[in-house]
Amino acid sequence: MKAYDELMAFQRETEALAEVAGRLGWDQETVMPRGAAPQRSEEMAAMQGVLHARNVDPRVADWLAAIDGEALDEVARAQLHHIRRGHDRATRVPGELSSRIARVTSRAQGLWAEARATDDFAAFAPVLEEVIALKREEGQALAAGGDVYDAMLDDYEPGATAETLTAMFGALRPALADLRAAVREAPQPPVLEGVFDEAAQMELTRLLATTFGYDSSIGRVDKAVHPFSSGSGLDVRITTRTNPLDPFNCFYSTIHEVGHAAYEQNIDQAYLLTPLGRGVSMGVHESQSRIYENQLGRSRAFTGWLFGKMRDAFGDFGVADAETFYRIVNRVSDGYIRTEADELQYNLHVLLRFDLERALMSGDLQVGDLEAAWNDRFEADFGYPVDKPSNGVLQDVHWSVGLFGYFPTYTLGNVYAGCLHEALRAAHPDLDDHLARGETGVATEWLRTNVQTHGGLYTPRDVIRRASGIEPSEAPLLSYLQNKFGDLYGL
Amino acid sequence: MKAYDELMAFQRETEALAEVAGRLGWDQETVMPRGAAPQRSEEMAAMQGVLHARNVDPRVADWLAAIDGEALDEVARAQLHHIRRGHDRATRVPGELSSRIARVTSRAQGLWAEARATDDFAAFAPVLEEVIALKREEGQALAAGGDVYDAMLDDYEPGATAETLTAMFGALRPALADLRAAVREAPQPPVLEGVFDEAAQMELTRLLATTFGYDSSIGRVDKAVHPFSSGSGLDVRITTRTNPLDPFNCFYSTIHEVGHAAYEQNIDQAYLLTPLGRGVSMGVHESQSRIYENQLGRSRAFTGWLFGKMRDAFGDFGVADAETFYRIVNRVSDGYIRTEADELQYNLHVLLRFDLERALMSGDLQVGDLEAAWNDRFEADFGYPVDKPSNGVLQDVHWSVGLFGYFPTYTLGNVYAGCLHEALRAAHPDLDDHLARGETGVATEWLRTNVQTHGGLYTPRDVIRRASGIEPSEAPLLSYLQNKFGDLYGL
Repeated sequence: MKAYDELMAFQRETEALAEVAGRLGWDQETVMPRGAAPQRSEEMAAMQGVLHARNVDPRVADWLAAIDGEALDEVARAQLHHIRRGHDRATRVPGELSSRIARVTSRAQGLWAEARATDDFAAFAPVLEEVIALKREEGQALAAGGDVYDAMLDDYEPGATAETLTAMFGALRPALADLRAAVREAPQPPVLEGVFDEAAQMELTRLLATTFGYDSSIGRVDKAVHPFSSGSGLDVRITTRTNPLDPFNCFYSTIHEVGHAAYEQNIDQAYLLTPLGRGVSMGVHESQSRIYENQLGRSRAFTGWLFGKMRDAFGDFGVADAETFYRIVNRVSDGYIRTEADELQYNLHVLLRFDLERALMSGDLQVGDLEAAWNDRFEADFGYPVDKPSNGVLQDVHWSVGLFGYFPTYTLGNVYAGCLHEALRAAHPDLDDHLARGETGVATEWLRTNVQTHGGLYTPRDVIRRASGIEPSEAPLLSYLQNKFGDLYGL
Repeated sequence: MKAYDELMAFQRETEALAEVAGRLGWDQETVMPRGAAPQRSEEMAAMQGVLHARNVDPRVADWLAAIDGEALDEVARAQLHHIRRGHDRATRVPGELSSRIARVTSRAQGLWAEARATDDFAAFAPVLEEVIALKREEGQALAAGGDVYDAMLDDYEPGATAETLTAMFGALRPALADLRAAVREAPQPPVLEGVFDEAAQMELTRLLATTFGYDSSIGRVDKAVHPFSSGSGLDVRITTRTNPLDPFNCFYSTIHEVGHAAYEQNIDQAYLLTPLGRGVSMGVHESQSRIYENQLGRSRAFTGWLFGKMRDAFGDFGVADAETFYRIVNRVSDGYIRTEADELQYNLHVLLRFDLERALMSGDLQVGDLEAAWNDRFEADFGYPVDKPSNGVLQDVHWSVGLFGYFPTYTLGNVYAGCLHEALRAAHPDLDDHLARGETGVATEWLRTNVQTHGGLYTPRDVIRRASGIEPSEAPLLSYLQNKFGDLYGL
């Protein structure tokens, strides 16, 4: 298969270049000198230009046309599927439109940051309208006659549709709102108090990374303003941050990012630098980070072990026993900010954004009405009003940079994590005995074998279906949350 | 000038991509996870492929042909000169030959490291023969009928020829060998003893970087196995290393690399991401690093200031006074290794390599006779025999990776530094008063204005000629060394 081999050799170089471009992002957030920014933006743009030129290269279409798919095995067919998908996407969007989107979102991001700092939504609204108009145009090009929002969604979660998500999310929303209200009426656990040495936080966070199977021989942990995971294959780096008043932010950010990183590190090495060598979707990615962080990391069993480690690191920090510690870790507090939300309330934040962004994209909601729509919806689901735009409609960067269709993958990831967690518990009824000893191996090995190793071999839904043995559904997540928080708050 | 503008826009992207490729090298030496090496080599190769494709892009030749050079100003003509030079070079060497050289030198570097570790030149000799044969072939392609060694030299030092270098170096060698012998017969200064805290070394080395004008807002200082400077324009990073027994290694490596980095940082910002936005040659680059390190950093005046800073950092470290400290810093010791050599003996090491590599390339010297030729020459110039190949012919990586024509630029840099230093002293007769206060500003500003700001605008010889006001010659370097070491050793 000469055409297949040539195409894969070409694609391998493209994947290597994509890794280089991705690492520029890591560099920028961790080690780049601040004065390098103007030069860096030209470097990034040049790399994007190289990648775009390869993605639309007419030879790719020629190779694809010359290959007889029937003669290929499952792996090769999956590789071609991803290559064809990327090539189609790149060729459908006119280069001139992509350039306009890049320019406008670059400007919009700056205006959003200013508007957030001054709590002035009106200052951001005009450029957001521009972004929406351009993204709609892009969505129409991608949809090729189909649904525009689904085409955007497909960028982050191949195969997902607004219709299926709406059904899932529609079942979640009232149940979560009820649970939230009940929890907030119950007696509250104490809050964590004290000052926690930042160097000791970093030491314990490195232990946590190792505990959850992060392989530092093919990765590294640094500090950055925002925690993230970057890269695939043999060079997957994560970042974390420290706050002397909030060690959980450091620890659970790290466990979350280790979930993302483990997915990338544990993909079958045979897929290195191929389209199958990356996590298959944002939703499946988030399922890994969330199950590491929440179902494992915030479990009663694991927090019992972590309580001991925190006492080793910080001495007596004012928490009497492991059960109290568990309740503090899982405390449900009022708050406006999605990224600071607990496991229970997080999805309500996402569902709000999903509904609003669909309405913005369809034209059912105008930008001029967005702030009021956000505030109404927030008060309906959370029971108290938004106090200022920076705590409401201006809190997230996503829309300013053109990320529409991305938010729902956060909750889809939680839904997938719920399915996987149920199957994992069935496969390993003694899981808590392990977690209580700080051993995550049975869980991470199960996830590696059933999810992570496959990379892009199966569709997102298929990989979850195969691993969990059920049709993906919100039911396991919901019953997990109801059981956990019902127990915690004596409901 | 549409063609000129298009060419420059294309070239600007190429320059940006070259910066990205260069930063991969920085990353590899400082922060890359060790297990990432196999993936990294594919990333590097893919970036080299992208850069090569751009350098041989036929549109470059079309643009060059369409531009009327007469209508351009001096800057634009200089830009075109560099672009044409790069394009010619890239198109003259067949891609297949470049690939073979890349493969063989990659293997040769590994074999060299093994041979050095086992002191077995015979194990390295066969692959060195392969490297020489391929580099000769490449040199013939580049020379296009001219001198093969000059064509190699031209890669690192545009315009230099073996003939002019031979004249310069021929005048240096006997004089330096005589000076070395006289110094080694004179009474010797003491040696530095003690253990110097590595964190305190790093703190002082950062102060030294700032003292010599390194701009950390567009750069950073890290530790690496080998000190180096990397990048151009707004992101120029340096590395250093620490050894508890040898703080001078850390301090003078840093000052040396700051010289390289300052050259890149101080080029006229109008040339950012253009062919003029980089140091013009290895020789001129080395002139900056050497004048910072030696003529300034190892001067009596500056070491007086450094003596005080070292006492601040390390307390009483067993050196009685500034004059003794000055003599220790400039101590001339027996030794085999070029990179550890003092200012006086360093050039004798380089001259040896220059003569041997020319003979290897012309065929006058066979690889089988190289070890003996090295040992004979070393004993003739240094007065004692080489004890083992790792202290002789196997000490440098250069030939294994195909760097022929590179060594002489080290001494050429010292020669240029000598010329610049003489002019700098004439322009600022009170320079020592400044250096004695740890103020390098008058010197670095003079170098910035007269050398660094020009980037690639003038030829290497021209930039030195304009700055120093004389035809480049070894005479100033020689009289500087004779005066300095004559004074130090009471000759």
